[in-house]
Amino acid sequence: MRSKYSVILGNLGNTCDRFLPTGYKDKVSKEEMITMAANIPEIKGLELVGTWDITRENVKQMKQMLGDHGLACVSIIPDLFSQKRWGSGSFSSKDPAIRQQAIDETRIVSEVAQEMGCDLINLWLGQDGYDYPMQAHYAREHEWLVEGIVKVAGEFTDLRYALEYKPKEPRTHSYQARMGDTLLMAMETELQNVGVCIDVGHSLMASENVAEAAVLLNHYGKRLFHMHFNDNYRTWDDDMIVGSLHFVEYLELLFWLHEIGYDGWYSMDLYPYRENASGAVRESVLFLQGVDRLLVPENRERIRQLIAEGDATATAGFVRELILPDALSKSYE
Amino acid sequence: MRSKYSVILGNLGNTCDRFLPTGYKDKVSKEEMITMAANIPEIKGLELVGTWDITRENVKQMKQMLGDHGLACVSIIPDLFSQKRWGSGSFSSKDPAIRQQAIDETRIVSEVAQEMGCDLINLWLGQDGYDYPMQAHYAREHEWLVEGIVKVAGEFTDLRYALEYKPKEPRTHSYQARMGDTLLMAMETELQNVGVCIDVGHSLMASENVAEAAVLLNHYGKRLFHMHFNDNYRTWDDDMIVGSLHFVEYLELLFWLHEIGYDGWYSMDLYPYRENASGAVRESVLFLQGVDRLLVPENRERIRQLIAEGDATATAGFVRELILPDALSKSYE
Amino acid sequence: MRSKYSVILGNLGNTCDRFLPTGYKDKVSKEEMITMAANIPEIKGLELVGTWDITRENVKQMKQMLGDHGLACVSIIPDLFSQKRWGSGSFSSKDPAIRQQAIDETRIVSEVAQEMGCDLINLWLGQDGYDYPMQAHYAREHEWLVEGIVKVAGEFTDLRYALEYKPKEPRTHSYQARMGDTLLMAMETELQNVGVCIDVGHSLMASENVAEAAVLLNHYGKRLFHMHFNDNYRTWDDDMIVGSLHFVEYLELLFWLHEIGYDGWYSMDLYPYRENASGAVRESVLFLQGVDRLLVPENRERIRQLIAEGDATATAGFVRELILPDALSKSYE
Amino acid sequence: MRSKYSVILGNLGNTCDRFLPTGYKDKVSKEEMITMAANIPEIKGLELVGTWDITRENVKQMKQMLGDHGLACVSIIPDLFSQKRWGSGSFSSKDPAIRQQAIDETRIVSEVAQEMGCDLINLWLGQDGYDYPMQAHYAREHEWLVEGIVKVAGEFTDLRYALEYKPKEPRTHSYQARMGDTLLMAMETELQNVGVCIDVGHSLMASENVAEAAVLLNHYGKRLFHMHFNDNYRTWDDDMIVGSLHFVEYLELLFWLHEIGYDGWYSMDLYPYRENASGAVRESVLFLQGVDRLLVPENRERIRQLIAEGDATATAGFVRELILPDALSKSYE
Repeated sequence: MRSKYSVILGNLGNTCDRFLPTGYKDKVSKEEMITMAANIPEIKGLELVGTWDITRENVKQMKQMLGDHGLACVSIIPDLFSQKRWGSGSFSSKDPAIRQQAIDETRIVSEVAQEMGCDLINLWLGQDGYDYPMQAHYAREHEWLVEGIVKVAGEFTDLRYALEYKPKEPRTHSYQARMGDTLLMAMETELQNVGVCIDVGHSLMASENVAEAAVLLNHYGKRLFHMHFNDNYRTWDDDMIVGSLHFVEYLELLFWLHEIGYDGWYSMDLYPYRENASGAVRESVLFLQGVDRLLVPENRERIRQLIAEGDATATAGFVRELILPDALSKSYE
Repeated sequence: MRSKYSVILGNLGNTCDRFLPTGYKDKVSKEEMITMAANIPEIKGLELVGTWDITRENVKQMKQMLGDHGLACVSIIPDLFSQKRWGSGSFSSKDPAIRQQAIDETRIVSEVAQEMGCDLINLWLGQDGYDYPMQAHYAREHEWLVEGIVKVAGEFTDLRYALEYKPKEPRTHSYQARMGDTLLMAMETELQNVGVCIDVGHSLMASENVAEAAVLLNHYGKRLFHMHFNDNYRTWDDDMIVGSLHFVEYLELLFWLHEIGYDGWYSMDLYPYRENASGAVRESVLFLQGVDRLLVPENRERIRQLIAEGDATATAGFVRELILPDALSKSYE
Repeated sequence: MRSKYSVILGNLGNTCDRFLPTGYKDKVSKEEMITMAANIPEIKGLELVGTWDITRENVKQMKQMLGDHGLACVSIIPDLFSQKRWGSGSFSSKDPAIRQQAIDETRIVSEVAQEMGCDLINLWLGQDGYDYPMQAHYAREHEWLVEGIVKVAGEFTDLRYALEYKPKEPRTHSYQARMGDTLLMAMETELQNVGVCIDVGHSLMASENVAEAAVLLNHYGKRLFHMHFNDNYRTWDDDMIVGSLHFVEYLELLFWLHEIGYDGWYSMDLYPYRENASGAVRESVLFLQGVDRLLVPENRERIRQLIAEGDATATAGFVRELILPDALSKSYE
Repeated sequence: MRSKYSVILGNLGNTCDRFLPTGYKDKVSKEEMITMAANIPEIKGLELVGTWDITRENVKQMKQMLGDHGLACVSIIPDLFSQKRWGSGSFSSKDPAIRQQAIDETRIVSEVAQEMGCDLINLWLGQDGYDYPMQAHYAREHEWLVEGIVKVAGEFTDLRYALEYKPKEPRTHSYQARMGDTLLMAMETELQNVGVCIDVGHSLMASENVAEAAVLLNHYGKRLFHMHFNDNYRTWDDDMIVGSLHFVEYLELLFWLHEIGYDGWYSMDLYPYRENASGAVRESVLFLQGVDRLLVPENRERIRQLIAEGDATATAGFVRELILPDALSKSYE
C-alpha cells in the first residue's frame, strides 16, 4: 500500500485574506495552475472546486487537460461557500429557495463528477452554522442540512460524499464542527455513501487527536472517506506547510492510517499566502513521504507494542531515536 | 414546569489542587455538608460520590439523613477517578483486572442507588483517556469502555446512566471528550437507559455552544439525562460560580432546556476553592432563577421569533433591553 | 465625564473574508458611509484609514464632509497592511526599501492628520510579525520596528501614536501581540507621544483581562491612548457587536476606564459581515451606554468596595442584582 | 559552551492533582529523591523548594548531601503557594500581614541560598492574581507585588531573582502571566538582580513563541535568568516529557539560547503523574541533548541564513532533512 498524493488546485493560485482581498500574489490561470501541479513530481491527482475550476461547460476540456497531464480528478468540492447567496448558509439556510439551490448545485457537481470519472464529492459546508447566540434553530437547521445531503447522496449512489468538518470560519460556529457531530450526521443519513473528510488542521483546531478521530471514523463503519493535510498552531486554520509544526502527531496519524487500511488520497490543502505555492505543496508531500519512510514494518510493529504498553517514556525515547539518532551526533562545540 | 436545583455534596467541603493538596479550607464532615446543603433554601437534592459519600455500609444512614433534611438523592457518581488503581483508566484500562473492578464498583453503586431510591448514575470517567501520542489503542480501549457500560447498564435497566463528558483533566485527552463522541458511545450501547450529562463548564471548555449540545442530545433520541452547572473562561474547568462570567449563553441554554422539555435536575458542580461554599452555591442558583424569571411566555415567544429571523442585531437589542432596561437609567455623571 | 463614541468608517462598507473576497454585501461609497455614520445619533467621530478613506489629495474634501456632518476625525490609521508591498511586514520588513516606505507612508498620514486637525495616529501593524518558526530575527526586526516608530513619532511631536496590538492575523504571530510587549516597545521609544490602543477583541483573544490591561497601561505612564470596541469568543478576532457575548467584562472595563480617567474616544471596530452595518454599530453604542448608565456614583463606590474585599460571591450577587433585579420578577410558569 | 542540566527535586517524588490529592504514586523521601537525581547521569544540579526540601534547620545537612552526590544547588524556590496562608496571594495579598510574611519567607530562603552557595532565587508567585472579574485592584496589588520584590532583592544584591511567569493555575489569572508583563515588573524594580525565568510550558500556554520571548528578554538588558523545560498541548501546564510534543520549537529555542549566550542551567520541571519519574526526567534531558547535537556550527550558520531569508519552505525543508534524512530511507511497503 503506497500513499497517493494530490492537491486542491486553488492552492497554487492567488491567496487573499480579509485585509488584502486582492491577494498576496498575482492571479494565476487555471491552465498555469494545472501545469504547476503536474510539475510537482509526487502529485498525481487534483481536487477541483465547482464553478471556480469546473462547470458543466468546461468539463470535457478539464477532463482532457487532466488526462494530458496524467493527473487524476480526486474529488470535486461544490462551491457552497464563496458566493453572496450562500452567505447565511446553504443546505441549512433559513430560506427554502437557497436550500433548494444548494441541492441543485450539488446535483450539478455530482453529474460533473460522474463525467470526470471521479467518485468523490467533498462537501465543506463552511457557511452552514451561525455566529451569535440565539441566531439559529439548532434542531430545525440540523434537519434541513441532513435532508439536503440525503436528497443528493441518495440519488447518486455511485458517488461517495465526504463531509469535511471545521469548528469555525467563516462562521463562528459550524454545524459540521468536529469529528463526532459530523459522523453523527453521516450516520443519520442512513446512506453508506456518506462519510467524513478529516482536514488535519481543522481537527487540530478542534482540539482533537487527529489519529483518534481517524480510528473512530473507521470504527463506526469505515466512514473515513478522505484526508486533507496542512498544519497550524491549533487555534486557527492557518493552512501551513505540512509538518512545519507537528511531527509526532503526524507520525501517529500516518501509522494509524496504514493500520486501519485507509486507501484514499493524501491531499494537500494549504493557503501559502506568502510562500511559493509549488514549493510549499511539494515540501508538504516530501514531509509526509519522509514520515512514511519511517513506518517500515519493524517500526510499525514496535509502535504497536509501545501502544499496547502505554509507557510514555518508552514511546518518547523511541521517537527521539527515530529523528535524533546517535549517527548524527557530533558534539556541540 | 419549575426548575429543580441540586448540588454535588462535595462542593461544600474542602477544596484542593495539585499545589495545595491539603486544601484551601478545613475538612468538613459529611453531616456538616448535608446540613449546609439543607440550609440553602433553593437546594432540594444532592448528588453523592460513591465511597466518598456513600457506600454499601452507610446507605441506610444516608437515606435517613437525606430524608430528615428533605433532600432527594439526585444521582450517585461512582468513584472511578480518585483512587490510585484508576490512575490509568477504569472501564478502558489496559489491565483486565482493573476493567473488572470498574464494572464491579459501578454495580455496587447501582445497587446502592436502588436502595436510595435514586434512578440516576452519573458516570464521569475522568481517568479514561490518555496523555501522550501513541500511548493508547483508540479502537480497542474505546470498545472496552463501551463494553463495561453495556455490562452494567444492561443489568440495571431501572436505572439511567448519564455519561459526563469533559475534554481533558486529569488526562490530557478524555475518551468521553465532547457531546458528539459521547453521544456516539451512548448510541453504541443500544441501551435506552444510557444518555449524556452536560456539564456546562466542560462544554464551554470543548468550544461547544452549550445550547446546541443540549438540543442535539434531545434530537438524537432524548439522550440529555442530566445537567451540571458552573462557569469558566472557556479554556479550563475553572468550576466557578454560575453566571459569574456568562450571561447570554445561560439565557440561551435555559430557553432551550425549557423548549426541549428537559425535566431533570439543575445541579450545581462548583469548586469554590477560596469562596464560602454555601454562598457560592446559593449565588449560582439565584442566578439561574433570575435567568429563568426572564423566560416568561412572552419572552420565550419573542426568542422563538428572533431565532427564526436570525438577525443578530435585533437579538442583541432584545437581550440588552432585558438586562439594561431604560427603567434603570440615570444619567452617568 | 461623558463617553464619546466613534466608528471606523470602513465598518459601514462591504465586508469580505478569504472565502468570499468580493464581499458579503455590496460596495458602499465613501459618501454613503459618512452619511450612514452621521445618521447614527450617538456617533460623533470617525476613524479613517489612509489610502482607503483619506489621502493627500482628498484631505480638504474629507475635512469639509466631516465638518458638514458634525463628525470629528478621531484618528487616522495608516494603511500598512492591505497592499501587496506590506505582505511580509512594513516597519519591520527584511527589505530596507519597504521599511523606508512604511516610514514615508506614516509621515504622509501624519501630515494629513495635521491638516484634518486630528491628533491621533492609530498604528496597527498587522503584517509585522511572522508565520513560521525560524522565519524571523526577533531582535533585529524588533529594533527596525521601534526605529521606524521613533523616526515618525519623533518628528510629529504634536501628534500621538497609539500602537494597536493583536496576537495574530494576518500573521500567525504579530510583533505587537499583547499589552505587555507593546507597552515595552512604546517605552523603548522614549517618546511621550507613543502609547497603546486596546482593541477589546484583540485583548480577549490574547487571554488578557481587558480591564487589567487598561489599568496597567495607565500605571506605566498613562500610555492608554485609544480604545476599540467589539466582541468575540476569545479565540479569534470575530469583530462582533459589542456586548453580544460579554457583559461583566464590559462592566468592569468601563468602571476602570472611568476610574483611571480615560478621556479618549470609545470607538467601534466591527466587521458586521452579515449584519446591517448601521444597526450593528448603533447597537454596540447602545450597549456601552447601557453599561455606563449602571455606573452611577453609588454603584461605582460599591464596586470599589467589592474590589477591596475581593469576595467573588458578593460581587457575583451585586452584578446579578444589577441585571436581574427582583423588579423584573414574574414567576416562570 | 555546554548545556548544564538540572531538575526540580520534587519532580522525582509523588504527584497529585485535585482528583487524587493523595497522589498517583507513593511518597518518596528527600534522601531517595536526591539519590534518584544523582543517578541520572546527565543531571548535575537541583532546584529546591523552600520548606518542602530546605529550611533554616536542614541547610547544612542538605549542603552535605548535595555535595556528597556532586550536585549543585541551582536555585531555591520559596514556597509562596502551597500553604493555606498564601491561598489568596503572597506579595500582593490584600492582607498586609500576609504580604509581610511573604517578604519574610523570601528573606529566609535568600539567606538559606547564601549558605548553600546558590545565587539564584526562582520566584513563582502562583497564588498572586485573581479568579473573578472585579475581584482585584490591579494597580494597587501590582504595586504591592513589586514593592515586596524590591524589598528582598534590594537587600540581597549578591543573589539573582528570577520571576517565573505563568498565565493561570492555580488562579484563573496570574499577575506575572506573560513574558511582557513580567519583564515590565522586573524593569520596574530598577534592580539589576531581578530578571525572568521562562518555563517553556508556561510560555506555550501563553501562546508565545518561546524563542521570541527569550530573545526579547535578552534584548531588554539581559533579563533571561533561568529556564524550565517541559512540554504541553499549549492550553494548559501539562508538565510533560520535554520534546514529547514539540520539536521544531525546541530546535529554534535552543538555537537562540546559544545565540544570545544564555549560560544558565537547563532545568527540568515535569509532573510525571503516571510515569517513572527518573525515566521521564532523563528522557527529557536526552531530547535536549539530541537537539543540541544538531546545532553544530554549520547548522547554526545555516539557520542564521534561513532566518535572514525568511523563506518558510526552505526552512521546513532544512528541518525535514535534519530529522528525516535520506539515509533512513527504506521504501515503505
